[in-house]
Amino acid sequence: MAALSICACQPQKDRSTGTRFPANGPAPAAGTTAAGADDGQWALPAKNYASTRYSELAEINTSTVGRLKVAGTFSTGVLRGHEAAPLVVNNTMYIVTPFPNIVYALDLTKPGYPAKWTYKPQPQLAAQGVACCDVVNRGASYDGGKIFFNTLDDHTIALDAETGRLAWDTQVGQINLGETMTMAPLVAHGKVIVGNSGGEMGVRGWLKGLDENSGKVSWTAYATGPDSAVLIGAAFKPYYAKERGKDLGVSSWPSGAWQIGGGTMWGWISYDPQLDLIYYGTANPGPWNPDVRPGDNKWTSTLFARRPETGEAVWAYQMSPHDLHDYDGVNENVLVDVPFNGQTRHVLLHPDRNGYLYMVDRATGQVLSANPYGVVNSTQGVDLATGALQYNPTKAPEVGQVVRDICPAAPGAKDWQPSAYSPRTGLLYIPHQNLCMDEEGLEANYIAGTPYVGMNVKMYPGPGGNRGVFDAWNPQTGKVAWSIKEDLPVWSGALVTAGDVAFYGTMDGWFKAVDARSGKLLWQFKTGSGIIGQPITYRGPDGHQYVAVLSGIGGWSGAIVAGLLDPRDSGAALGMVNVTRDLPDKTTMGGMLYVFAL
Amino acid sequence: MAALSICACQPQKDRSTGTRFPANGPAPAAGTTAAGADDGQWALPAKNYASTRYSELAEINTSTVGRLKVAGTFSTGVLRGHEAAPLVVNNTMYIVTPFPNIVYALDLTKPGYPAKWTYKPQPQLAAQGVACCDVVNRGASYDGGKIFFNTLDDHTIALDAETGRLAWDTQVGQINLGETMTMAPLVAHGKVIVGNSGGEMGVRGWLKGLDENSGKVSWTAYATGPDSAVLIGAAFKPYYAKERGKDLGVSSWPSGAWQIGGGTMWGWISYDPQLDLIYYGTANPGPWNPDVRPGDNKWTSTLFARRPETGEAVWAYQMSPHDLHDYDGVNENVLVDVPFNGQTRHVLLHPDRNGYLYMVDRATGQVLSANPYGVVNSTQGVDLATGALQYNPTKAPEVGQVVRDICPAAPGAKDWQPSAYSPRTGLLYIPHQNLCMDEEGLEANYIAGTPYVGMNVKMYPGPGGNRGVFDAWNPQTGKVAWSIKEDLPVWSGALVTAGDVAFYGTMDGWFKAVDARSGKLLWQFKTGSGIIGQPITYRGPDGHQYVAVLSGIGGWSGAIVAGLLDPRDSGAALGMVNVTRDLPDKTTMGGMLYVFAL
Repeated sequence: MAALSICACQPQKDRSTGTRFPANGPAPAAGTTAAGADDGQWALPAKNYASTRYSELAEINTSTVGRLKVAGTFSTGVLRGHEAAPLVVNNTMYIVTPFPNIVYALDLTKPGYPAKWTYKPQPQLAAQGVACCDVVNRGASYDGGKIFFNTLDDHTIALDAETGRLAWDTQVGQINLGETMTMAPLVAHGKVIVGNSGGEMGVRGWLKGLDENSGKVSWTAYATGPDSAVLIGAAFKPYYAKERGKDLGVSSWPSGAWQIGGGTMWGWISYDPQLDLIYYGTANPGPWNPDVRPGDNKWTSTLFARRPETGEAVWAYQMSPHDLHDYDGVNENVLVDVPFNGQTRHVLLHPDRNGYLYMVDRATGQVLSANPYGVVNSTQGVDLATGALQYNPTKAPEVGQVVRDICPAAPGAKDWQPSAYSPRTGLLYIPHQNLCMDEEGLEANYIAGTPYVGMNVKMYPGPGGNRGVFDAWNPQTGKVAWSIKEDLPVWSGALVTAGDVAFYGTMDGWFKAVDARSGKLLWQFKTGSGIIGQPITYRGPDGHQYVAVLSGIGGWSGAIVAGLLDPRDSGAALGMVNVTRDLPDKTTMGGMLYVFAL
Repeated sequence: MAALSICACQPQKDRSTGTRFPANGPAPAAGTTAAGADDGQWALPAKNYASTRYSELAEINTSTVGRLKVAGTFSTGVLRGHEAAPLVVNNTMYIVTPFPNIVYALDLTKPGYPAKWTYKPQPQLAAQGVACCDVVNRGASYDGGKIFFNTLDDHTIALDAETGRLAWDTQVGQINLGETMTMAPLVAHGKVIVGNSGGEMGVRGWLKGLDENSGKVSWTAYATGPDSAVLIGAAFKPYYAKERGKDLGVSSWPSGAWQIGGGTMWGWISYDPQLDLIYYGTANPGPWNPDVRPGDNKWTSTLFARRPETGEAVWAYQMSPHDLHDYDGVNENVLVDVPFNGQTRHVLLHPDRNGYLYMVDRATGQVLSANPYGVVNSTQGVDLATGALQYNPTKAPEVGQVVRDICPAAPGAKDWQPSAYSPRTGLLYIPHQNLCMDEEGLEANYIAGTPYVGMNVKMYPGPGGNRGVFDAWNPQTGKVAWSIKEDLPVWSGALVTAGDVAFYGTMDGWFKAVDARSGKLLWQFKTGSGIIGQPITYRGPDGHQYVAVLSGIGGWSGAIVAGLLDPRDSGAALGMVNVTRDLPDKTTMGGMLYVFAL
């Protein structure tokens, strides 16, 4: 297999408006250069702008990984779902906890990793009541000597990375409207880019760019409404005809429904500095019951390319028009350059909730391939000529009738848990689930700040009975190279290294290392709680390679444990309880950092 | 130094009324035989009836301990102070958490130690409001195929050790009266022996013996009141004249004050099967303000020897008559046979809160020696002829006047955290604190179920500035053999092994192994939270030695972290906050089991 290169997505100093790094700081860490010079840090949740979660470090490799041992642990002092990636910059590790969103800066140069500082933002308690699926946080970003993160009650906060002192704190949303924030910001072109959560609460989705130095909101790009609100203007050149037309964010909805129509943005943002485009997907339309919102419901479940400085849309592609099944588009976009049909194509790889792995030209938005990476019967493929998703009419939900055996279930073939890409193997490592569901549409009434769903859901394991999968996907062939079946949904992020080892965690707490070329299990360690966090790797102050991950069950998939839900209530956690009823016997709540080394 | 033997305190099958072990179970585990045949289990919080916390296992020794690694972890799913010792019986590890007092049975034969069963007693939430000093639990006991433990809301519960099924559940106290339960039961002579907590709430202390099979209360021995209630009868033969007289539990109090006079029992019980006597100490009198309770306040702060079958008192010795400073007598009694003045004496070693290490003949109650093991200025020694504690009148608290520089402070030179004794070294390993205080008496009004203290307390570090000490004490010389100064109070239990290694933990999370003969630090590992638990060791299913400890800050000493107390409030946690103000910067809440092996 030919080694493929990652997008040359290093940060562009000349375009940045902020101070990039303190004088005593590390070399720029936000990107991995095409040449593969890895500074051994982990400054962004996805390691680099390309979101590859790939590290050049190789001390821990297929030969040595079997000797991996616990090098350190740290209790976050918070239970509930720990979905964040730790960051490592300048020999300091930064952790953001679930609500109440405490930030710890651990000094990696000292034994036992004592905290250099701790920041406790004290978000409003009421925010917990409007979070759809546990009170998670997906992490922070480092840039220019600052740590940026969001609180559940809709503040974006910048801290001095060295001292923990507050640089700025901007309220960008309102919990009274059902808005919360769970995503990790990305900093590009001097803007801290953040989005809201709450697609199950009648929230109108947006992405905002805040000035990196002042915290002032520079731009807001709504997912619904008139073009002026969506920041669609003269530069907007979508590839497909179906995305063209004036104010589609209004006209593709029943009168006014776009105002409470979802399309939130709680997933991942990637950045291509050469094209100067950010990429992200919007979430599901609201409510889930599709009967009350005839039309395409633009721009929900849509992939956007925008200019980070202005928010201006350059192209868009709606994966799931008039989404029927909560198929958000928020999953990660991994920017890679791959040979395809005899050419090197600059693409993004997007494993969507709807079950298709979209390979998209990141300059134009053209879908080069869209093959299923999980079990899909709710749709019958993607027409590459028109970009249209072919719905299966027999799987459309109806009010007052239970439609059975819909695959994938509402969390999709994969949810937010991000995949990793190795340029050495040319494979994308996809942690995901294998769940199907029964659905029954219900009346939904909008009351601000309350659930607005209109669907009964009951999930169960997909074909084969295994609820989880860890796949290696070959974008050249559009097929799975190898696959590991897991009993529980694989709800952790993935990591892959130049040691040709891929890492992921299981919901019952196993942290696993597998051979990146074969999938062979090389090592595992049972952490104290279930893992839904994102593993990272870094070079420690001693020059050696470390691997770190947060353990702490929760999130949508682990809500039965973190939320102490009644296992008899099949519909609890939007149907998730029915398929995770055994989880409380398999893991316990926790909140613990594990660091491993040889 | 001559090797000394531990009391031959193995369980006596012929005296037991219960089935000792299931047919497929292990050899009797409750005691270590004098011959030293160690079954490698840990069935009681203190390992054996003698409460030595000594194991014959020696694979982990002074030469090998430096190679100790994390073998496993388990999140209890509960934050707050974890003071319990895990138990290991029949390749199963049993853990009791702080409130809500979940019991886990972990299968040590399987990778990752999955739970065989989990028992959730669901105690009343209101119990948390009447617990004086965090919602801790000090562990369970195993006997005859059952696990026995107490809930914070005053239930003693027996579970089938194999299945977790409830055998019986007896309510023995009332939270409405301020009673809680935090201690670990001891089973002796077919009785499950338990006591109450709540000396700061006007609670009347008691010890109860429950039938091991039915859970029915066989006897109740109050600490105060008439002899009939204290179970003082014809067999009562105290060594000292000061303990003789009719109904001293009434006459040593102002009229009726004994009814709300404290003397609870939340510490440790030891058992000598040869003498058929249990040993335990009662807690402080209430309220703390001594002016309102003139008299000796019997039988608070008193060491008792009783028959386990009937509760009948055989002797008593009041360490701190008319206690002035919250000097509970609940600390452990370690039963050893030591050469003393040319004879082998059958003694108990009792490091009391008041700062004296009492060596007491366990048949008669005679105090053979009582030397200070910490800094003491509140008293001026113990008169061995009369047994009297010599108070220092200049350190007596007064209402409306601050008396300064009282040593030890209210938690004593040592609190509940139990010491360990090695027959190989002849040394007692004492984890303790070095705190002094200012006191000011206040009016105290009794309202059932509310605090009844009457004292302002402000603690600070004792001479030298180190707040913690780990001492090796030589009972033959009555002196410290070696001493380790720790910055924070040493609030964990101690463990010592035939590998001549002693283990303890620190409140900032370090788990340490030191040379039992010299105190030299041999190994340490930083756990995720502060350690106030009790380390144990056992032989695993693979034949190898393991060491385990719970990490999770809290308790009185860690209340500032576990209770999120305001560091500006010097008097919070009964004055403890003033001397632990830096703790939130040094550790975080947690609840995690760590298992270590070579």
